[in-house]
Amino acid sequence: MTRDEAFFEFLCRMGDNTLVLGHRVSEWCGHAPVLEEDIALANTALDLIGQTQMWLGLAAEIEGDGRSADDLAMLRDAWDFRNVLLAEQPNGDFGQTMMRQYLFDQYHLLMLQALAGSSDERVAGIAAKSVKEVAYHVERSRDTVVGLGDGTSESHRRMQAALDLLYPYVGEMFESDAVDAAMEEAGIAPDPASLRDAYDAALTQTMAEATLTLPDSRFAHSGGRTGFRHTEHLGHMLTQMQWLQRAYPGATW
Amino acid sequence: MTRDEAFFEFLCRMGDNTLVLGHRVSEWCGHAPVLEEDIALANTALDLIGQTQMWLGLAAEIEGDGRSADDLAMLRDAWDFRNVLLAEQPNGDFGQTMMRQYLFDQYHLLMLQALAGSSDERVAGIAAKSVKEVAYHVERSRDTVVGLGDGTSESHRRMQAALDLLYPYVGEMFESDAVDAAMEEAGIAPDPASLRDAYDAALTQTMAEATLTLPDSRFAHSGGRTGFRHTEHLGHMLTQMQWLQRAYPGATW
Repeated sequence: MTRDEAFFEFLCRMGDNTLVLGHRVSEWCGHAPVLEEDIALANTALDLIGQTQMWLGLAAEIEGDGRSADDLAMLRDAWDFRNVLLAEQPNGDFGQTMMRQYLFDQYHLLMLQALAGSSDERVAGIAAKSVKEVAYHVERSRDTVVGLGDGTSESHRRMQAALDLLYPYVGEMFESDAVDAAMEEAGIAPDPASLRDAYDAALTQTMAEATLTLPDSRFAHSGGRTGFRHTEHLGHMLTQMQWLQRAYPGATW
Repeated sequence: MTRDEAFFEFLCRMGDNTLVLGHRVSEWCGHAPVLEEDIALANTALDLIGQTQMWLGLAAEIEGDGRSADDLAMLRDAWDFRNVLLAEQPNGDFGQTMMRQYLFDQYHLLMLQALAGSSDERVAGIAAKSVKEVAYHVERSRDTVVGLGDGTSESHRRMQAALDLLYPYVGEMFESDAVDAAMEEAGIAPDPASLRDAYDAALTQTMAEATLTLPDSRFAHSGGRTGFRHTEHLGHMLTQMQWLQRAYPGATW
């Protein structure tokens, strides 16, 4: 694996996270429980898709194969996606969506803060632009997790169920492999494992305020960011997300 | 509209009904509440897809444009589908699926019995083959509707809810338009409206046994069999049903 091959993988991981989570969040458009949340979720989705454009745009440039960000987003199949499994999990109810969002946002913020100091100025630039948006995402998703966790008995029950369901997808975000080692050596990106302590501290604080109990087990599903094995949900999502370019190749408007 | 154009439309209506309902039923595969039902639903789906092959195969032959049954099934978009709206409605719970099945099967049986006497021997042949399968479908779906309707208070409540939800999709199956008039004149197919009395009699008997109440209103959604306006569910279904041929055009195995 050359340095550029590793760099391409890294950029796909960043861009596929924002693409897949962005698409999931966009599924709420017109369906959220109140108008304010509907608009907020749509805006979050737009931020994430905008970040995708930058990450996958740079990935396509590094690849140098003539593919565009759109090609990477719309014409790869499930096995070429590099997002963490957390991002592709179904929306469930509103509480489950917001728990997924918080668990990702908290990681995303730490990763982008570190990437703002990247030795690659294009990466540093994308991170600096994204981190402002994501600081707002985590503020919102954290407030919602606390508000619903420490809310009614029904909202508490649902948020605890969401945490129990999704916590086994947290560990994958902090795994390290040869791609990460190459990025760290080049000063492009931090070792994800190095972010875990700060993440755990934030989560412990948030869940305490939310009166929610973090699961004891650190068991973690994995296979998304390496592309080894996605959950069944990703393929189904791609049939909808990629439909237009699959049915009408090259369509523009 | 030439006679062959009307004939093509008619055959698409028959074949799209069985294709779309067959796909919907196949979505249960591996998910039904008990093994016996899982296998029965999968067999029903297979019957319907097999009938689709015959109807759309003949449609493609009549069209004479070089398209195959597979092309019609996998490469048309929502606005070219001619199935009734009932067929594309989501599965809901098991009771809702079986209510949808019975409401369609009862119509399907009457239509196929009439088509077995078609002046077109290809149509008569397909109908004669299909009617044996569909006689079994309606026996099963009718038994289930009666068993769950006249079952526990929970199963009764769900079956009544399913009937209330789906009955407004019944009327479309008995609409007549210029295509039907041309088919009747050619002796190819009956006017669907002529089947309504027998259908109503069967439904009244079945729902009485099932202790379910037929809705008063004859209001009927329509737009599926003419292609004027499908429900949002069809397009989403096609993204999954057609994915493979859209993503890998011409793929065979």
